[in-house]
Amino acid sequence: MSFELTILGSSAAVPTSKRNLTAHVLNVHEQFFLIDCGEGTQIQLRRNKIGFAKIDNIFISHNHGDHVFGLFGLISTFNLLGRTKDLHIFANPNLEIFLNQHIQFFEKNLSYNIVYHHINPKLSECIYDDNNLSVHTIPLKHRVPTCGFLFAEKKRALNIRKEKIKEYNIPIKDIADIKNGKDYIANDGVIVKNSELTCPPYKTRSYAYCTDTAYTEKIVSIIKNIDLLFHDATFAKNKEKQAKESFHSTGEQAAKIAKLANVKKLILGHFSSRYKNVSPIIEEAKKIFANTQAAEDGDIFSVELVREKE
Amino acid sequence: MSFELTILGSSAAVPTSKRNLTAHVLNVHEQFFLIDCGEGTQIQLRRNKIGFAKIDNIFISHNHGDHVFGLFGLISTFNLLGRTKDLHIFANPNLEIFLNQHIQFFEKNLSYNIVYHHINPKLSECIYDDNNLSVHTIPLKHRVPTCGFLFAEKKRALNIRKEKIKEYNIPIKDIADIKNGKDYIANDGVIVKNSELTCPPYKTRSYAYCTDTAYTEKIVSIIKNIDLLFHDATFAKNKEKQAKESFHSTGEQAAKIAKLANVKKLILGHFSSRYKNVSPIIEEAKKIFANTQAAEDGDIFSVELVREKE
Repeated sequence: MSFELTILGSSAAVPTSKRNLTAHVLNVHEQFFLIDCGEGTQIQLRRNKIGFAKIDNIFISHNHGDHVFGLFGLISTFNLLGRTKDLHIFANPNLEIFLNQHIQFFEKNLSYNIVYHHINPKLSECIYDDNNLSVHTIPLKHRVPTCGFLFAEKKRALNIRKEKIKEYNIPIKDIADIKNGKDYIANDGVIVKNSELTCPPYKTRSYAYCTDTAYTEKIVSIIKNIDLLFHDATFAKNKEKQAKESFHSTGEQAAKIAKLANVKKLILGHFSSRYKNVSPIIEEAKKIFANTQAAEDGDIFSVELVREKE
Repeated sequence: MSFELTILGSSAAVPTSKRNLTAHVLNVHEQFFLIDCGEGTQIQLRRNKIGFAKIDNIFISHNHGDHVFGLFGLISTFNLLGRTKDLHIFANPNLEIFLNQHIQFFEKNLSYNIVYHHINPKLSECIYDDNNLSVHTIPLKHRVPTCGFLFAEKKRALNIRKEKIKEYNIPIKDIADIKNGKDYIANDGVIVKNSELTCPPYKTRSYAYCTDTAYTEKIVSIIKNIDLLFHDATFAKNKEKQAKESFHSTGEQAAKIAKLANVKKLILGHFSSRYKNVSPIIEEAKKIFANTQAAEDGDIFSVELVREKE
């Protein structure tokens, strides 16, 4: 049951020889969610050995080219490879209009359907929901309508201890009740406590993607106590004015948000191409929030399975 | 005085972890000509240390995504870096219409002008001309209007031997005549033969880019005796039927063209992503045309300066 983030691109708007444009992939139980899709995403997927067929859902934070231009090639490649499954794109409504024009010009007929899900980036609302996961939008503060995404695993039922089913000869019809926390009453009337029959469930895991954005404490309540936070850190703090003007953040500002939200780990990225070495950005963040790490292309961040209490 | 081709991407429509989408850069005397612009071109330019400011002319063979989708990011990056010089794009007229829509949606105002030069891919005509170089179109055979490009250095004047200027005390006013082949008549009436005063000029160098295309002998007369030919070799010969249906070529077919045209060197590329190892394509070509090489991303092919006769 994976919960694993792969960084496909960690640069800001201009790529470098080492940093591709923004795209992340979150693997939740072998379902792969693509978050933003900068130019070169399909090539980075290949390099990181993530199969194209595993991607059914793409989340686009905002309509700036460095977060979007990889969609054209990916849509085209899916078509060339004969995809038939629906592709779901969660994005600002304008992107549907533009992508339709684009497909009309370059592709004409696709072998599959694109299902658009329109995002209102001013709200924090649930935009995706399945048995394992929900995705909520996080309103961000950028030059154009932009939102981040909170991916949160669903709370799981208690895990039943297999050896206890055998020991007490528990019939299948009673299993669901036990998983929901009930004690088991045997045929002879003996009550077996639920705590004897079950292990605590695994903790739910969570990841929030917050770029592009200026410093805004409004997001803190949405991302409270999460496992992994990726936050815009385009600049170092000596460029705070430039960060503000361009609606981006510094490493220090990102760390303040991580601290306020009490997250477990902070990942910084969307680095301006001016920084050949990003360690000044990471160091300034670590002074405020110790568990901070720079995103590098190809990095994998896993959140381990841990039981709630034992 | 460089004449140097860099391969930025050597894959067909679907990229692989090792082969980017199609783009070449030809350096002619430190002017850099970009030929096609598949997704990831700007990143490949960075990796190959080719400065964005050196590129003023882009030639697009046809409007298929794998030859075009890198333009969006490149245009955007030029803008972010504050380019002011005109950018010249030589392409099918439809591309102007589409790029204008695109720029309107994503960029609004560019810091520089794009000057479009409309290509008629049915003709072989001169579309670019400066002091050093001319570029002619090469009509190709593909599913959509497509042309290749022939880059040919201009014939240069004779090189004067500096020591002879001193020896005969030749005044500046006579230099141009000598460079054009005239003998020198000294003040005392003595005739100094031009061959004593000059070295032969350097041979003109040439490169033709021919992809995407099915086998067509119509191009042979246009590319006769050139130094470097890049030719579509999407498939090996056991997929000749598939090559024909998709209007691409096999390695063997490309070699036949190279032989008929008596070129000096053949470079094969635009390899289908099915070939993890392209040596079968190269080997079948070498049986017909020995001086054949596979294009690999980052490869550089230089044509040396050689005097016409000594």
